[in-house]
Amino acid sequence: MKPLILVTNDDGIVAPGIKILVQTMQMIGEVVVVAPDSPQSAKGHSITIMDPIRLRKVDVFEGVEAYECSGTPADCVKIARNVVLKGRNIDLCVSGINHGSNASVNIIYSGTMSAAMEASLEGIKSIGFSLCDFSFKADFSPCIDPIKKIATWFLEHTLEHTNLLNINFPKTDGKAFKGIKICRQANARWIEEFHEAEDPRGQKYYWLTGVFENNDTREDTDIKALNEGYISVVPSHHDLTRHESLHGKLNDLTSL
Amino acid sequence: MKPLILVTNDDGIVAPGIKILVQTMQMIGEVVVVAPDSPQSAKGHSITIMDPIRLRKVDVFEGVEAYECSGTPADCVKIARNVVLKGRNIDLCVSGINHGSNASVNIIYSGTMSAAMEASLEGIKSIGFSLCDFSFKADFSPCIDPIKKIATWFLEHTLEHTNLLNINFPKTDGKAFKGIKICRQANARWIEEFHEAEDPRGQKYYWLTGVFENNDTREDTDIKALNEGYISVVPSHHDLTRHESLHGKLNDLTSL
Repeated sequence: MKPLILVTNDDGIVAPGIKILVQTMQMIGEVVVVAPDSPQSAKGHSITIMDPIRLRKVDVFEGVEAYECSGTPADCVKIARNVVLKGRNIDLCVSGINHGSNASVNIIYSGTMSAAMEASLEGIKSIGFSLCDFSFKADFSPCIDPIKKIATWFLEHTLEHTNLLNINFPKTDGKAFKGIKICRQANARWIEEFHEAEDPRGQKYYWLTGVFENNDTREDTDIKALNEGYISVVPSHHDLTRHESLHGKLNDLTSL
Repeated sequence: MKPLILVTNDDGIVAPGIKILVQTMQMIGEVVVVAPDSPQSAKGHSITIMDPIRLRKVDVFEGVEAYECSGTPADCVKIARNVVLKGRNIDLCVSGINHGSNASVNIIYSGTMSAAMEASLEGIKSIGFSLCDFSFKADFSPCIDPIKKIATWFLEHTLEHTNLLNINFPKTDGKAFKGIKICRQANARWIEEFHEAEDPRGQKYYWLTGVFENNDTREDTDIKALNEGYISVVPSHHDLTRHESLHGKLNDLTSL
């Protein structure tokens, strides 16, 4: 029996990246798509609890059952599991291909990775794919073969400690990827800038923008792998506990 | 010199929980508030990149410089650092007191904790406080003394491995807290339900709801501490790498 693969993203159901991902998944399984009806970049792990959620069957991908959803990427996975595929076992969830990097700290802002994490929380093997190229005209075709290989491998193998992978492809401008590296999340950051402007009524408003800065010099980070032309694979999870701090000075608090 | 303390939340600047937190922080430092102008629960680490952000000085807390912001909790911290407090050193960021639990997996959906994490990313000591009581009429007064003690301690002590604490108060119905426990994030989950309804035009829509289920039986989880009447303190961080998986079977991928 073909594996059942749920495809979603955060750039919206008509983004070029998800089209490539759907076509690639059709080579290895039965594909169902539930994706946002509008761009949802940087939505983090937002879920919709104060508004109703709409779900509409659409004919976007040839021969593929697909739905657009008014909610966030995490909502899409929840409604896919509970409404669209109710009672069916999802073998793999893939999210993307994101237009832009989700390496390093971008994982915490990323709708793409939140959708993947939402599936992983439910015990579903899950991968977020991103290409480090924000252009809507980015060339996703070099990603097809590695995505097919990685997804096939992940369907056949179960990891002991995680079921969630954050995979980024470097922008290569036509050159081949150097290979795949298993990496840790680089400890980089955004240096924000707020652009101040004034609306026609004389009220100030701000645009959030910024530049990405990486000062993490460790050998095995995702940013380093990407800079060297490798595909980065970061095994990830949703346990945000800082275990190193459980047994130290922090225990002073218990005697306050 | 008094420490500079940034206060924010996700329930909005007029929520009762933030009022208590502001009053408590006024006992130990100079307080500046930048908080959402509307409820932002479950917004995760969403940031606003496709819309302009509004910031307006308001007179909500007596004797305290305060701003309401149209953005998400993470946006509030970014604009506080870059616009409101530009060039000033923030000694502590506190977020909350949240109306409802942010223990266990709730941390990933939580606007309260995302605001705290956003500050921690910038090297600022940061604490999210939450009371396990969703009621807007919840009694926050028992939290005042422990928050004052914990914040004072954290200002005086620097932890080696983290600067981010996720602190939850149990609902005690008037009884005293049993004490403070240092905990790990319980591996619990939400079991979702979608309530289907029909709008006046005959179109279906869904409400996301669910019940929380904890099957994590380990001794030192936040859920267990809270159930026993203790305040839970989880040292947290933003590195989502699953380090145990870096050197195992996953490396098969590098030879695909």
